[in-house]
Parts: sequence; structure tokens; C-alpha cells
Amino acid sequence: MKKVAVILSGCGVYDGAEIHESCAALLALHQAGAEALICAPTGPQMHVIDHQHGEPVEGASRDMRVEAARIARGPVADLAEVDPSAVDAILLPGGFGAAKNLCDFAVAGVDCSVNADLASFLQRAHAAGKVIGAMCIAPVILARVFGQELRPRLTIGNDPATAEAMGAMGAEHVERSVAETLVDEQNNFVTTPAYMLAQNIGEVFDGAQTFVKALLERCH
Amino acid sequence: MKKVAVILSGCGVYDGAEIHESCAALLALHQAGAEALICAPTGPQMHVIDHQHGEPVEGASRDMRVEAARIARGPVADLAEVDPSAVDAILLPGGFGAAKNLCDFAVAGVDCSVNADLASFLQRAHAAGKVIGAMCIAPVILARVFGQELRPRLTIGNDPATAEAMGAMGAEHVERSVAETLVDEQNNFVTTPAYMLAQNIGEVFDGAQTFVKALLERCH
Repeated sequence: MKKVAVILSGCGVYDGAEIHESCAALLALHQAGAEALICAPTGPQMHVIDHQHGEPVEGASRDMRVEAARIARGPVADLAEVDPSAVDAILLPGGFGAAKNLCDFAVAGVDCSVNADLASFLQRAHAAGKVIGAMCIAPVILARVFGQELRPRLTIGNDPATAEAMGAMGAEHVERSVAETLVDEQNNFVTTPAYMLAQNIGEVFDGAQTFVKALLERCH
Repeated sequence: MKKVAVILSGCGVYDGAEIHESCAALLALHQAGAEALICAPTGPQMHVIDHQHGEPVEGASRDMRVEAARIARGPVADLAEVDPSAVDAILLPGGFGAAKNLCDFAVAGVDCSVNADLASFLQRAHAAGKVIGAMCIAPVILARVFGQELRPRLTIGNDPATAEAMGAMGAEHVERSVAETLVDEQNNFVTTPAYMLAQNIGEVFDGAQTFVKALLERCH
């Protein structure tokens, strides 16, 4: 059974892991006979956003991993303690948590930095030949970590400003539709637009099937 | 297009709406061509549970509706302001929010009471001939609101203590598997066990397909 580290960043589109994307990935992995090892970095989210009103909650603090456990329905592994050689692939759902907590692209753009535990994990995983998949906005993390060294081919759909920023970080952005998945054969990266383009929950779940299939096909 | 009020109770299995069940219901509704009107009562959850450690967070407070907006990816309607005659059906996902926030069955058992906005909404919906569906533990709400008057046939799977409590509230509990949905033809109630029995996310999404199909078939 293939084992996939699913790296969450909280629970909720505006301050954590996008819930539909995370569930779609977990469902597709299960249906493909793969095992999900759900993990998250430990530490506070950049923001707590009131999703009803779309505004930050002043003074509030929530931990990425504690909130991610809502999606996992129980404890999730501390990313700092996960050995990338123990999994066959890595999967990063999107949501603003990917661009605020796992890195700070949402506020720093091309000058963003990546959570140290995650950057280390991804570098070791790539060095060990693991396939890395990213949905929605999460490919910006791969652009930041690997852009200068690997010149990876990545997609976040077709948003011009994000595509330009990824180019500035060293990646080649390739347009893809919500139904499609882009495979960077050379670097073993798999990316798909998900809610960067999806108009409804059905498109996210359909896209995740194609994405997870491509991810698992590249495990060896 | 059929319109279904999906009533959430927060965001997370131990203190709110079960996330996988909620997503499974929303996906199945979308795939069946129905529109979801996501709504929740306004007011504090009974608990805030740290899902990583399984313990209440002392002094913390979260609002059912504000947290439900995480699953909805934006604003959800205030249940108190939704007119049941404006929808074709009602759908209640499970999670401890259904048994702690929408009613207090988790602590009060057969002596539980139901959130006043929800009880009123369900009574008006039933009187207007709307079909009402409930997943997982949420059928206890129907047992409490309608048990004495209607003697409804409901399932939460096969948990003996819960089944007995539902009997004491006036309902007839009928055992069903996770893949099955029970239809009370006379009262227009549709129930399915979901995570009361599901061993994995796949069983929840599969069960939701059957459940939503049965729910929509009974809309008129």
C-alpha cells in the first residue's frame, strides 16, 4: 500500500487548509488504495479569519496542527517528526493556510519564505526521489523552495499575477484547466488548480481524482 | 433545481458538524443537480474541543454559524431567518455538533432539548410536507422533536444505547448498515448511519450518495 504524507495547514479556506480540497484528496487517496499520513507543522496560524464575515479576529490564535486535526478527525503527525523516506509521496492541499502558514506568499509575494520544517521536509523528500503534489495555491511553495535550483514546471491555473510571481521565483508557470493536472516529469512534481479555478465542489473532487492518480502513478 | 437547506453546527467532529459528512452531502447534492442552502443557528457551541488532544479548551468560545462558514467557504444563512417553505428538503449532517449544539443529547440523553430555532424550523418544514434527512447521530434530533407525535422510524446504525434512547423518545430505531439509507415513507424522514458506522472516508462518501438520492427522490 502506498503511503502519502498529506500536509495540512489548519482548517478553513481563509486561514488554513481548504476543507473541500483536503477531503477530496483524502477521498481520492482512499479510493486508490493508498494510505494517508496526515501531518502539519506545529505553530500558530498567521491569522484567524472569521469565515462568516471575512475578517481577521483580533487577538485570536489557533495552531495549524491542532486545527488540522479537525479535518483528520483526530491527532495528526508533527511534520518535524515525519521521515520523508517513510512515505511514497507528499501531497499539499491549498487554501490560504498554504500561502499564510506554510509560507507567507499571501503577504510577501516573491519575497516569501517557507516554514522551516516544511522546507527541510520537502528538500529531503525530493532528494530521496519522492513525488510531490500540490493543489490550488500550494505550488507557490514548490516555486520558492525549488525554483532557483530546479526550474520546475508548475501550475496554479491561469492567474496572471501568481504565475508571474512564480516565474520570478524561478519556476515556469504552465496554464492548466481545473480538470487537468500538470506533471513535471523531470522533477517529479504534480500540480493542479483546484479552487484557484473551480466554480463548485464537484470540480474540486473531480480534479482531485486526476491529480491523485497522476501522483500515485509516479511513486516507485 | 431542487433546493436543500443543509444545517451545520460548527466545523469539526468533536464540537461541530462532521467535516467529511458535510462535504459528502454537499458533493452529492451538487452531483445530483440540487442547490445547497447552507445554514446554521447563531450562538456558541457547547464546547471547543482541541481535536489534536481530544480535550475541551477551557475558556474558549466559538459560534456555530461562524465556524460552519469554514465548511461553506463563506457566509452561511442564519437558520432563524430561513423560511422552510423556500426549500424542497432539509439535510442535517452529523458530528458531535448535532448532539451538543443542535440539541444536547450528548450530555442529557433522553432528556435532551433541541435548539429552539431548529425545532421551530423542523416543525414548520414537516408541516409543509418537506422531506427531512439526517446523517450519523443527527437522527436523535428527529426522535426528540417528532418522537411522541409521529413515532418515526429512524436509524443511527446499530449502537444499542443510542437506539434505546431513541426508543425512549418515541422513535422506532431500525438497524441499517453504513451503505444503507432508511426511508420513513409515512413521515418523510430519511436517515443513514455515516460515521456512526463508517470505517473510512470512502464509506461516508458512498453512503451520502445513496442518502441524498433517497432524499431528493422524495421532494415534490
